[in-house]
Amino acid sequence: MPSVLLSNRMTIFRIGRYVNSLHFSRNASVGSQIAEEVSKLLELKAQLSDDGPQKFTLKTPKGTRDYSPQQMVIRNRVLDKIITVFKKHGAETIDTPIFELKEVLTGKYGEDSKLIYDLADQGGEILSLRYDLTVPFARYLAMNKITNIKRYQIAKVYRRDNPAMTRGRYREFYQCDFDIAGQYDAMIPDAECVKVATEILSSLELGDFVIKVNHRRLLDGLFEACGIPATSFRTACSSVDKLDKTPWEEVRAEMVGEKKLDVEAVDQLGEYVRMNGGEELVETLLADPKIGGTAAAKEGLQAVKLFLKYCNLFGVSNKISFDLSLARGLDYYTGIIYEAVLLGQTVEVKATDNKDAATQEVGVGSVAGGGRYDNLVGMFDAKGRAVPCVGISIGVERIFSIMEANLAREKAKSGEVFRTTEVEAFVASAQKNMLTHRMGLCRDLWDGGIKVEMSYKQNPKLLAQLQYCEERGIPFALVIGESEVEKGIVKLREVTSRKEEDIPRENVVEEIRKRLQLCS
Amino acid sequence: MPSVLLSNRMTIFRIGRYVNSLHFSRNASVGSQIAEEVSKLLELKAQLSDDGPQKFTLKTPKGTRDYSPQQMVIRNRVLDKIITVFKKHGAETIDTPIFELKEVLTGKYGEDSKLIYDLADQGGEILSLRYDLTVPFARYLAMNKITNIKRYQIAKVYRRDNPAMTRGRYREFYQCDFDIAGQYDAMIPDAECVKVATEILSSLELGDFVIKVNHRRLLDGLFEACGIPATSFRTACSSVDKLDKTPWEEVRAEMVGEKKLDVEAVDQLGEYVRMNGGEELVETLLADPKIGGTAAAKEGLQAVKLFLKYCNLFGVSNKISFDLSLARGLDYYTGIIYEAVLLGQTVEVKATDNKDAATQEVGVGSVAGGGRYDNLVGMFDAKGRAVPCVGISIGVERIFSIMEANLAREKAKSGEVFRTTEVEAFVASAQKNMLTHRMGLCRDLWDGGIKVEMSYKQNPKLLAQLQYCEERGIPFALVIGESEVEKGIVKLREVTSRKEEDIPRENVVEEIRKRLQLCS
Repeated sequence: MPSVLLSNRMTIFRIGRYVNSLHFSRNASVGSQIAEEVSKLLELKAQLSDDGPQKFTLKTPKGTRDYSPQQMVIRNRVLDKIITVFKKHGAETIDTPIFELKEVLTGKYGEDSKLIYDLADQGGEILSLRYDLTVPFARYLAMNKITNIKRYQIAKVYRRDNPAMTRGRYREFYQCDFDIAGQYDAMIPDAECVKVATEILSSLELGDFVIKVNHRRLLDGLFEACGIPATSFRTACSSVDKLDKTPWEEVRAEMVGEKKLDVEAVDQLGEYVRMNGGEELVETLLADPKIGGTAAAKEGLQAVKLFLKYCNLFGVSNKISFDLSLARGLDYYTGIIYEAVLLGQTVEVKATDNKDAATQEVGVGSVAGGGRYDNLVGMFDAKGRAVPCVGISIGVERIFSIMEANLAREKAKSGEVFRTTEVEAFVASAQKNMLTHRMGLCRDLWDGGIKVEMSYKQNPKLLAQLQYCEERGIPFALVIGESEVEKGIVKLREVTSRKEEDIPRENVVEEIRKRLQLCS
Repeated sequence: MPSVLLSNRMTIFRIGRYVNSLHFSRNASVGSQIAEEVSKLLELKAQLSDDGPQKFTLKTPKGTRDYSPQQMVIRNRVLDKIITVFKKHGAETIDTPIFELKEVLTGKYGEDSKLIYDLADQGGEILSLRYDLTVPFARYLAMNKITNIKRYQIAKVYRRDNPAMTRGRYREFYQCDFDIAGQYDAMIPDAECVKVATEILSSLELGDFVIKVNHRRLLDGLFEACGIPATSFRTACSSVDKLDKTPWEEVRAEMVGEKKLDVEAVDQLGEYVRMNGGEELVETLLADPKIGGTAAAKEGLQAVKLFLKYCNLFGVSNKISFDLSLARGLDYYTGIIYEAVLLGQTVEVKATDNKDAATQEVGVGSVAGGGRYDNLVGMFDAKGRAVPCVGISIGVERIFSIMEANLAREKAKSGEVFRTTEVEAFVASAQKNMLTHRMGLCRDLWDGGIKVEMSYKQNPKLLAQLQYCEERGIPFALVIGESEVEKGIVKLREVTSRKEEDIPRENVVEEIRKRLQLCS
């Protein structure tokens, strides 16, 4: 097998390359890269260890997974519920390619740009896998000069992140996005996005949740009021964004140490970014001379006030928390930002010697997020024509994980068959040499629109066929033998009750249909 | 803007790289590569031509496209019909990542391997985009030690092919696969795959079609009987496979010239590979001493005979053509192979001075294909344990194109609104300052499960709102003004008939529901 030899040579070549790359990465800020490469090296070495014809490790790429038929049933149930809500709010859907010209993604994700997957240069265009659905959506609007649309899109996106798959964090994962593009009056579409998110999270029955809300202009105003220089707003923002997972002391240390921000400014900021509440907090901050006196902060606060009023009209106030720690890492947000968090879903968090950490909602992953991005479309337009947009993105991987766990518990309790097919009837033979009759019967049932299976063996055993029906939860078996064929009948067996009844062969489609209607 | 400067520098760098690559590609067999790179060069030059701040061309990557909301409606209709048939035959569904370890794809696609998209090496695993759904399916079976499954999968695959998008050939495109894996009796699952394909093509109402059938063992036997050496079977196969698009004379020239096969052997082969028919052709060939006397050919013929018998029982014989020119390029097929072709769908084909060309089905694209691949799963198993598989793949891009064209014709004729949303009612205001009332009404309707939209403006004009309903095909408008609010009513307007009726505000959900049931 020359391909094995080639593969060996490739492996040795690659080990060389990895050893070389270790020298470079020692200077890199990302410490985990070294660890990753060492483990890769050991993996490659292990592949070389035995001399016989060897195979590579059979696996999906790091941070990705297959979906089994059972997982697909759960996934489709979740996505169906989400689509139902999107459609209830009048959204159309579009699709875009899985990759974009690399230039489309450049300059949109701030510090996260390093997580973009690039395609190899094979002598054509320079391409990257999409990092989210928002930037391709903005590219689509600019390219087609669309100024008004309410669209949803459900598709996979790609991030070369450090995967934490038990917590539902993958390198390939679904996003379910709902966005409203168009020049409209303030906060009306913004509030509808939050209404959409609450309807989805409620319909999925995941327990209680809260949607944290903040405003980019308010954050800018806060930074300004606390004395952080304008050139450091972006980097301060990305530090503050870590507050959902990291205690303030660590974030503070990063801002003061690594990012060299003024201690006093950071400490002042710390007073504010740990606040959260509702309309009363808006009023308190508006009355605060330092904050209320800063134009950007005031503008942000008034926007939040209007937003909370509309949320009240939509009946979702009880799910909203105005939270000054919410910053969201992505560069393109310009107005309101939000993030939904499940409550009561516990996740193991590394021990920390900080006392506050236990009381924070540390580690409870976000299941939805979004905000307003009024300038993104304009970045793609030759004349800079802007199309204001606001949207929400549901991160379903964590939801899939929760649903899977719930279902496993229910299954264990009830002992019911979890069906991965919709088969309505199984054509079985009671004797040998019935294949042609089984095939003919299946044909008639398929042509009549009934969901039918039969055994692919010439002479399957009756018991094995009936057992298959029970294991699979198929409601009806249609049993034929020589005598049934002679009499022109079919034995219809109700699988769970094991009741049997003879029905005329020519009425079989009708009879099955009638019984299925009774069942449903 | 430093990013523009950087982008300029990148462009110059890339031009250099392309010029360099031109020297190399002059020796390459693929002549089109030079043309592609020259055009790329010109494109890059054009980007540099003006000095102002410039943007890259706003486009999707070569060979890919976006789907507009209208196209999505068509796509979803097609996919729904396909899924219905897959489910009718009892298939479960799975999903696999969009990329695989490169090694998973290596050695599976013969000459087509050069069309695989690779990801850039960013310091982790070496990955490629999937080329089809069959190889990932086989990897999934081997990895999870699954020996029995009937699964469908609908997902995008990637090929760096020369796109011909007007004819529905893309670099990113959907495949809809149905496969039966397991050790079963001969030809039973194979015939069901063809039954599935006929049901799908019939339900899509694309006009008449034919499913060409051949067998790999028969092809091997044919090559052997005609005196082509065993080492050249693969390359002969890939030449024969071109017969659907290329006249025999050109294929012959390739085999004799480029591939250095014996003229006499090729001419003998030419007599056979242009034959097609039904059961009678099987009998003729079995009686042919040269063919019937070759073990592999005889084996293939007997398999085809059994297959045709089962197709007859499934009622699809009239759609099957036993066609010796069908070869299919992929390496992994081991038994029956098939390919479905639409009849009566004309496609412009380049003029050729060959007379036969006009009478051949040249250029009519295949819309489905598949076959048996008994050794593919074993290639992934450390102990080489095989799981026999057979499957069919529906190529839907061409079908989408046909449906789009059909629909455009129908629309032009009927003048009906083509809906891309499912909105049932629109909440409109007859006067200014009704926003809070509109929001409250929307809330109640959404919470009641009604699909509702409203304007995102504070004070939209009534006429504009009603016009929107008409353009969008929304059946009901709910109009409120101050007097309606006072009286506790809502004006319900049937959009097409423009009939209006007052209904109590508190019954609005019930009333809409009642009317929607009458409509449907």
